Order: sequence, then C-alpha cells, then structure tokens
Amino acid sequence: MNTVTPPHRILLGPGPTNMPYRVYRAMTTPITGHMDPEFLEIMAQVGDLLRYTFVTNNKITLPVSGTGSAGMEAALVNFLEPGDDCCVLVGGFFAQRMAEIASRTGANMIQVDAEWGKPTDPQKVADALRGRRPKVIAVVHGETSTGVLQPLGPLAEIAHKHDALLVVDTVPTLGGVPLKVDEMKIDVCYSGSQKCLSCPPGLAPITVSERGAEALRNRKSKVQSWYFDLSGVEKYWGKERTYHHTAPITMIYALHEGLSIVKEEGLENRWAHHAHCMNALRAGLDALGMPSLPEPDYHMSSLAVVRLPEGVDDVRLRSRLLSRFNIEIAGGLGPLKGKILRIGLMGTSCSEGNALLLLSALEILLAEDGYLKATGRGAGAAQAALAQAAVVAAK
Amino acid sequence: MNTVTPPHRILLGPGPTNMPYRVYRAMTTPITGHMDPEFLEIMAQVGDLLRYTFVTNNKITLPVSGTGSAGMEAALVNFLEPGDDCCVLVGGFFAQRMAEIASRTGANMIQVDAEWGKPTDPQKVADALRGRRPKVIAVVHGETSTGVLQPLGPLAEIAHKHDALLVVDTVPTLGGVPLKVDEMKIDVCYSGSQKCLSCPPGLAPITVSERGAEALRNRKSKVQSWYFDLSGVEKYWGKERTYHHTAPITMIYALHEGLSIVKEEGLENRWAHHAHCMNALRAGLDALGMPSLPEPDYHMSSLAVVRLPEGVDDVRLRSRLLSRFNIEIAGGLGPLKGKILRIGLMGTSCSEGNALLLLSALEILLAEDGYLKATGRGAGAAQAALAQAAVVAAK
Repeated sequence: MNTVTPPHRILLGPGPTNMPYRVYRAMTTPITGHMDPEFLEIMAQVGDLLRYTFVTNNKITLPVSGTGSAGMEAALVNFLEPGDDCCVLVGGFFAQRMAEIASRTGANMIQVDAEWGKPTDPQKVADALRGRRPKVIAVVHGETSTGVLQPLGPLAEIAHKHDALLVVDTVPTLGGVPLKVDEMKIDVCYSGSQKCLSCPPGLAPITVSERGAEALRNRKSKVQSWYFDLSGVEKYWGKERTYHHTAPITMIYALHEGLSIVKEEGLENRWAHHAHCMNALRAGLDALGMPSLPEPDYHMSSLAVVRLPEGVDDVRLRSRLLSRFNIEIAGGLGPLKGKILRIGLMGTSCSEGNALLLLSALEILLAEDGYLKATGRGAGAAQAALAQAAVVAAK
Repeated sequence: MNTVTPPHRILLGPGPTNMPYRVYRAMTTPITGHMDPEFLEIMAQVGDLLRYTFVTNNKITLPVSGTGSAGMEAALVNFLEPGDDCCVLVGGFFAQRMAEIASRTGANMIQVDAEWGKPTDPQKVADALRGRRPKVIAVVHGETSTGVLQPLGPLAEIAHKHDALLVVDTVPTLGGVPLKVDEMKIDVCYSGSQKCLSCPPGLAPITVSERGAEALRNRKSKVQSWYFDLSGVEKYWGKERTYHHTAPITMIYALHEGLSIVKEEGLENRWAHHAHCMNALRAGLDALGMPSLPEPDYHMSSLAVVRLPEGVDDVRLRSRLLSRFNIEIAGGLGPLKGKILRIGLMGTSCSEGNALLLLSALEILLAEDGYLKATGRGAGAAQAALAQAAVVAAK
C-alpha cells in the first residue's frame, strides 16, 4: 500500500492555510449524485452562505469549479469580448496575471502600472481612461505578492462614471479583511477557498452584480471558455438546475462547512481577529528588523510582506523553518525574489499562538546565524513586542 | 451548527460513484503547501500512477484542476487555433459538447454525425476529410449519453494518415474499460476522477503524446485559456516545478489513493471485473424487458444504456428507486429523455451485489406498478438471469 504521509505543517504562507477539523470531517460525508435533490439543497445553502460572506444580495453567487486562478479567468472572460477596452491596475504578480488573462480575450488593454509594494494612484487610472470606453476595470484588492491593500472606493467611482464593470480579486482577503461587495459597488468579485476561508484549494467563490449579469446577457459573441461560461454554470446553480458540469461534490461539502464556521463566528468578529493577530505579528517582525514593504495605510490584515534583513539568505531561512519547525512561509516572486518574506495569518492559521511560534522560531534561526548578535536585537524582543501589541490591540 | 447530512446513496448512475473508504481517509491527510517538497514528491507519484492507468510513457501526464469537462476543454483549446480544421464525431451529448468547445476556438468545424445509440462509421470520417487538413480529430471513446463504445483503431489510422492529432474522451472508460493510450496511438486522452477511478469529482487526468507536445510548442498564438494552458501547467507538474496555480491538494491526495487502488488491483483484473459484473447486469435487465440501446459489439463494460419498457414513467421509477432504496441511476439526455435508463457499474460501485440489489429493486417497483404482471415477466427472472450470467461469465 502506497498511502501519502506528508508531515503536519503549520501553514503561515499566503495560502493554503491549515484547515479546521470540521472541514476535514465534512469531506468524509458520503458522496451523492450531482443532481440529487439533497445535493441541490446543499448547493442552495452554499449560495446563501457565500452571499453572507461577500455581503451581497447578488443572484449569481457560486463557487467556480477550479482554484482561485479559475475564478480570475471566469471573472474576466465572461465580461470581455474582442475589441473591448479593458483597464487593469498592475502593481504585482497577480495583477499581471489578470492582465495576461484579459489580453487573451482579444480586448484592448489599458494597463496602469504601480511600483511593486505601492498602491495604484486612482488619478493615474482616471487619466489613462480619458476618452476611452472601458468595459472592465480590473483590480486586485489584496495583492498576495506585495501585501498591498488597494483602496477600492475611488476606483468604484471611476468605473461607474465610465459605465464600466469593476472586477475585483479578493483571493487573500475574503473572510479575513473588511469587504462588502454591494456597499462597495463591486460588479464582479472572486476569491479562493484556501485563504481566509480555510477550505482546501479547488473552488473559487464568485459573485456578479445585476449590472454584470446584464452585460453577460448582452454579449455579442459566446464566452470563449465553455467551462467558465457563467450563463451555463448559473443555470445549474440557479433555479433552473440544468446540468452543466459535475460539481466537485466533496469540495462543496468542505466549502459549506468552512462558510458555516465563518457565519457562526460572524464576519465582523473574524475581520477583527485577523487585524488583532496581524498587528501583534507586525510588532514582533519590526522588533526583529523586518519592516513592512507596504506603508501602514495599505497593510492587509491577513498577510504581512516584510523586507528581509540585509545579508539573510531567503531560501536558507525558509528551508530551515520548514525542516526544523514544520512552519511554511513564502518568499518573494519576480522582482521581489530573495528580498522579502510573505507571512500569512489567514483563517484557521490566524492565531496569536502561531504568530508567537513563528517569531520565536525566526529569532532562534537568525540568532544561530549570528544576525541578531550583530545588530544588537533578539533575546525575546520579538515576543515582547508581540505581547505588548496584543495587549494594546485588545483594548 | 449547520453540517450537511445527505443520505448514504448507492450510486449506480454514470458517475459520480461511491468511493472507497481509503479515498475518504486520504482526504483527511494534513494539508501541505502546493510548493512543499513533500507535496511535489506526491505529485510526481500521481504522474507515474496516471501513466500506469493510461498505459502510456507520455511525459505530459497530469490531472487538470477541474472536472471532466475541464479536461475536455484543455484537450481541445491547447491544440486548436483560429482557422484550424477540426473534425468531431458526434453521436451523443458529450460529443456535442466537444464540438461546442472546439467551435469556440475559432476552428473550422467538420462534424460527422451518427444516430444516437450507434457508433460512427469510420468511412464517413474518411469521406468528410477528403481534401481537408484536420489539425484534430476528436472522438468520445465511451459516450455516457448513449452507452456506445466507439472502436478507436480505424480512427487512429485516419488521424495519422492526415497528420492530425487524435483527441479521445475516456471519461467513463478509464480504469474500467480496456484502454492503452500508446498502443492505440491516441495523442491526447482525458478522463474524470469520479467514474471508474472512484475518486471525488474535481480532477481531469490528461495525457499528451510527443506529437501533441510538439503541436503545443509550435502554436502560432497563445492558448485562449490561461488556466488550461498546458505549457504553463506542465512546468508545474514537470521537472521545472514552476508555480502556475495552486493545486487542489486534498483532491490530489484522493486521486493518489484511488490510483494506488487501481494499481494494486491491476488494470487487467479491473477491466475483467467490470466486464463480468456488467454482463451479469445486462442479463438481468434483458429478463426485465429492458434491452440495450447499443448493439452488443458496441457495449461499454462500465455503463449500460437500456430502453425503458413501454408505458413506464422514467421520472417516477427513478425517484422511487432513490427515495425507497437510496439507489441513484440516470435517465436520458436530449432526444433520449424519458426513453432510456443509464446504469453504471463503475469502480467501487461495480459489484455483483449492487447489480443484484438494483435488479431486485427494479423488479419490485415494476411489479407494484403492474408492469411485470401485464407482460408475464418477473418473479425473480432478473435475478435468475443475473445468476446464470455471472456463472457463465466466471468460466
């Protein structure tokens, strides 16, 4: 017998996260058919739980049968046709991916760049769109490669002034960072199951406003992807219950459980818990000489992206964290490779205990390599800072 | 708490099937990161197990992160560009879906039709391709909507004569029906995890020959789908290990376990077991007055598609099977709606016991509705036929 036996990791990267035992247990629920009346009822409940989590009343609210990048593709190819103007705000790896996917629809791309680690200035977007008729303005809410949280308000205003759809990536923010789809006037919003929802990767929740649904109905050409064509997928998830493709049934069970936990905890409580733990972690990282890459105004409460101290080898540090302490964190992508660490406190992985463990482990490893001695830091400074921050945050 | 509690169904439709307890247990294996060295090793093992199951040495052999229809889309959009000639053999619902997906690439479609329930005559394909230069010939091996098993030998010959790629859908056949990808000269072959492999739905195994890989490298344009672009996906599954998208980790654990079971049993034994149980089931269905829709030469050993007796209400029969006996079977799609039953004995659901239970249940329900009395059938005829067929088949 050849069963997989990976070690028990503590997942403090930008996702996947550790999962609640209830989500593991949900996956062992006996499988039903994808058209079974009992399963259709479970699907309806998942739709409602997603509406709660996105804070929306949107009719089209469902999990796309693929990972977060599948949600990204669905969110773009359904609303773009060849020749449409599409504006993408690019200040990181996943925004680049949005631009890449959008460009494959044959849309005319209007790319507004920002330095990695900084938000995009809305004025630059307004300027770039002068005289253009964008069908879509696409933006990443929390950029997983840089840790930047992009303010959405001014962008929603620009989008609606242009009668464009605001498409927002909330992969690392949904369920952990304040987000209200209807109130924030987002037209298309997608996420992934394995970040702040702490479900296994493989589903991409998406929600589409009535304006988005109308744009979908008014397309001149068919959506280039059959699998991601929301006009077909929605008939399966909506009232019609017309077979489109077989739903990933055990994953839907898992998502149902993960979203039930979100609702039991309460969204506002969950947001506050993420902010509390992340504030504490940041205090400790500061004490270790690892300042945040983004400015405080653009911090994401589910993910810290911090600069590596001078002379510390990224790969060596992370591989020792993994092999000795079973802790996973992530390094930089693209131009930030070797220069940063990406540390997530998301969903089930988000706790003061995990922050404390990581800081203690980092302090030991950095001390062993002689780094903290050289800088005069260490000897519990990180833990002390975390403890103080946690007390302050709790007030 | 709002946990899902569906009933324990006996799944004898065309998939999903019941799952081995080992596959359920595999999903509760602690989750790791998608770039964790331990997970990369599991991915390598899954690739090898898929090569065993497809009977191939193809380098590009991996599970697409979506359901069977995602595999279908990946198998077509990677190999077609606008203006290419694409021939699709259409004799059922899933072949129609292939044609629909292929047409969305901008390819010139050459559709060769067959009556639903009959195989496609290879001569018709040869005739349709005279003077054309097809890039792809796409065919469904086992058509889930009709139960027809299409012989592939003559089609491979035609494809290679035209220097075209033979793309084959093996969704309900892989792991249950004899299939040897290399020996049968198939260029692109895909399946689903939830049929004869008895894993949860959500993954689509695919394998691509060296000719297929060359065609992918020689494309003039980018693949229209970023998510399904095998040139990117393969860099994650192949030696490079470059991040593309987050793998559905728990599903990969499940597939690893399901494929390990296939290998432990042995492919040939598994094929023989499916043939044995299906022969027995067919004998019983015949005795109940439900003859096969396809001719015996085109029977699929994982799925029986049989005509409903005159006057028997499809929906009433299936809903009584479900509510009283917890047994799921399927009805007809499209033009066959209300006229047929589709009964699968696939993977873990494939057993003499399940065949016997279904026949007994069908006999009771048909008798209660007065059908068997009217025709003079019944009183254990089905079970007796099954028993006899099983004895004969075992010799």
